[in-house]
Amino acid sequence: MTARAAIVVTGTELLGGRVSDRNGPWLAERLSQLGVDLAHVTIVGDRAADMLAALEWCAVSGIELVVTSGGLGPTADDLTAAVVGTFCGREMVLDAELEERIAEILRPLRSRWPDLSEETIRASNRKQAIVPAGAVVLDPVGTAPGLVVPPADGQQGPTVVVLPGPPRELQPLWSAATQTDAFARAVAGRRVYEQQMLRLYGLPESQIAETLRAAQASGVDLGLLEVTTCMRRAEIEVVSRYEVEHADVYEAFATVVRERHPDTLYSEDGTSVDDHVATLLLARKLTVAAAESCTGGLVAARLTDRPGASVYVLGGIVAYSNEVKEAVAGVPHATLVEFGAVSAETALALADGARERLGADLAVGVTGIAGPGGGTAEKPVGLVWVAVSSRDGARIVRQARMPGGRADIRERTTTLALHLLRRLLLGESDPLGGVQESPDRDARD
Amino acid sequence: MTARAAIVVTGTELLGGRVSDRNGPWLAERLSQLGVDLAHVTIVGDRAADMLAALEWCAVSGIELVVTSGGLGPTADDLTAAVVGTFCGREMVLDAELEERIAEILRPLRSRWPDLSEETIRASNRKQAIVPAGAVVLDPVGTAPGLVVPPADGQQGPTVVVLPGPPRELQPLWSAATQTDAFARAVAGRRVYEQQMLRLYGLPESQIAETLRAAQASGVDLGLLEVTTCMRRAEIEVVSRYEVEHADVYEAFATVVRERHPDTLYSEDGTSVDDHVATLLLARKLTVAAAESCTGGLVAARLTDRPGASVYVLGGIVAYSNEVKEAVAGVPHATLVEFGAVSAETALALADGARERLGADLAVGVTGIAGPGGGTAEKPVGLVWVAVSSRDGARIVRQARMPGGRADIRERTTTLALHLLRRLLLGESDPLGGVQESPDRDARD
Repeated sequence: MTARAAIVVTGTELLGGRVSDRNGPWLAERLSQLGVDLAHVTIVGDRAADMLAALEWCAVSGIELVVTSGGLGPTADDLTAAVVGTFCGREMVLDAELEERIAEILRPLRSRWPDLSEETIRASNRKQAIVPAGAVVLDPVGTAPGLVVPPADGQQGPTVVVLPGPPRELQPLWSAATQTDAFARAVAGRRVYEQQMLRLYGLPESQIAETLRAAQASGVDLGLLEVTTCMRRAEIEVVSRYEVEHADVYEAFATVVRERHPDTLYSEDGTSVDDHVATLLLARKLTVAAAESCTGGLVAARLTDRPGASVYVLGGIVAYSNEVKEAVAGVPHATLVEFGAVSAETALALADGARERLGADLAVGVTGIAGPGGGTAEKPVGLVWVAVSSRDGARIVRQARMPGGRADIRERTTTLALHLLRRLLLGESDPLGGVQESPDRDARD
Repeated sequence: MTARAAIVVTGTELLGGRVSDRNGPWLAERLSQLGVDLAHVTIVGDRAADMLAALEWCAVSGIELVVTSGGLGPTADDLTAAVVGTFCGREMVLDAELEERIAEILRPLRSRWPDLSEETIRASNRKQAIVPAGAVVLDPVGTAPGLVVPPADGQQGPTVVVLPGPPRELQPLWSAATQTDAFARAVAGRRVYEQQMLRLYGLPESQIAETLRAAQASGVDLGLLEVTTCMRRAEIEVVSRYEVEHADVYEAFATVVRERHPDTLYSEDGTSVDDHVATLLLARKLTVAAAESCTGGLVAARLTDRPGASVYVLGGIVAYSNEVKEAVAGVPHATLVEFGAVSAETALALADGARERLGADLAVGVTGIAGPGGGTAEKPVGLVWVAVSSRDGARIVRQARMPGGRADIRERTTTLALHLLRRLLLGESDPLGGVQESPDRDARD
């Protein structure tokens, strides 16, 4: 027996698809770390009947812990606290102490937004202080409190953790919720799992399917590992989740993958290519720059995504027009004329130009056709060239044909750029004078 | 009476939170356009029992149409077709014609991945050709077919549209599914809604809550509009959904918003600031460039996100280090020394430098402290300066204090940059010599 949880995300804007939910995935990872088994995530609109139906489904399916996100704001479509109160059989009451704390929080707002009326503030304040009787109230991070609401005495059903929608409020309140006795009681049956992730780049998903069959055939009991494979940003992630006593089964499985995919398995501990590039740059005290055309800033944005990136990222050039490729990134006019903007030579000249003009130790150059327009028979949409080069003369240049739409092509090309940087940092280099076909073919078959 | 739909997204990687689902939001928008009311979206793992339970919940809650995404791949954890077959009371059968079509599709793969064994390919092929008897089979876009599966004769319950997980396969197969008779029968009860979106930038969400109360108090029956408000990329979106005969109620509501928020309501037709900037640049035949520090490429990436951006985006400079700010973006050394890298003067010099060096008509300059490190008492994490300037001497410079973590700060600053570009394009300009406090304060209260 193990504790089962469900997540109920509320918000008509999320249900309607205009906004992607970020809290469900975040909470799912936290539950997994706690060893609580997540059964399902449901998104419902801001309608009391639908919210209540979702909670009742959780009760029927034997869930012990429900986590809700959203619907705690000041507007009238924020209904979660009241619906959870009904579901748990608890009356709604004004918590005077909480009202005072929220008033305290709102005080600085009055100077920041001097045109807000007292009345506006007081109405929001009071609404957010009405909570189910007997709930554990978690101190607000924004203006909404979190709640841990066990079923009323004598009633069966899950305990509900109620959290606000903004991630920067939800995340600290989740931590606070997990510290409560009510939470501990709800997940008392949890069991500890190990989770391991392998990452591979440059092979089709069906090869992994074949490897799973081979592992099973060679005697590895995959039934004990709950293996899932998925494509993400043009990579394959293989995740195994197993009870601690089956660590040896996992090791046998990992050995099969290692033996069958020596060139494409690049991470055995879940670290990403971004982690690898950052770690290698830091360890060697090297700096990096980018000159990119079709990715339009995504390579630089991804390199600077991590805290502390300023230690090793000097910057980049987004060379969208040919004039900028020449004038700012230093691509020779003759290269553009002779080989065209989308060519191995231009990719390499972009890398070299960025490296020299920004004074970096290594650099990446990207050029290609992201579409939907601009393709020709010879250079179709999805054709990209990526080059990396270093101060000491090492270089790798790769061509790829990326599938998908504009956003896919841009993202996959960014991933290829990161992988080539990693290879260069690991000491790979192409011989001078030749440009190879890319072994980093796209991973979707 | 109106047709109600639900979406069931399968995938342990999605449930586990490592990957965000993109299909649920996309399908939700399509259903809304068709006038089908979406009741809920549920994410379940690749476990047959959980998938079946989710489908049964749909049946119990009176859903007429279920759309599933994922679980049609070649690996053993891909179970959807079989589970839907069970749910709809239909036997699984090998569709020989489909098997042949998939074999056809896989043929080019053999040259692309010469090391794939025949056996691997045949096993994947056959698995994907086993479908519920009597289902409508939709031609594969990748290797997985889509299915439209009505309940078996004499059985009650929803019709299930089964779609593969990769968005570029799901999207065309969804279109194909909507053309089938089985689909038309399932959604026969649909009703047509209008949906309208207002976008505002630069005010706290509680002011919108107050405006909703004011509108109701002035006699606008909001009960007829299903108004939802949400924060997205530092903007407020107000969405109304109503039956066509209540268009006058919506107009009265929009008038109230217009009167109360003349400076912050910038879009009444759902168009984004990105749309406005692109449209204005195209209409005036102007070009744009960016020089950015703390956003690290995100401004350029967002400007180049749209198809056809190369007409008006020349490129950009990611000036992360001070040396690059000087050498590549042309920020005077004296400016950096006197005012510091995070200052109005540096932001303006970045904009001017990018504009001149890239030869653009206008440019944006961004500098700030994205954190988590690097803040001081005087220049805390979240402090940013954004400047826009044009060839003819117009300029706007704004300071803002962005809340949230590194990713929030980078994203909100990018949004501010887009809004300042829009203002400049609409003819606004600050007087020379003075730098104003930002009216584009962050929208979260």
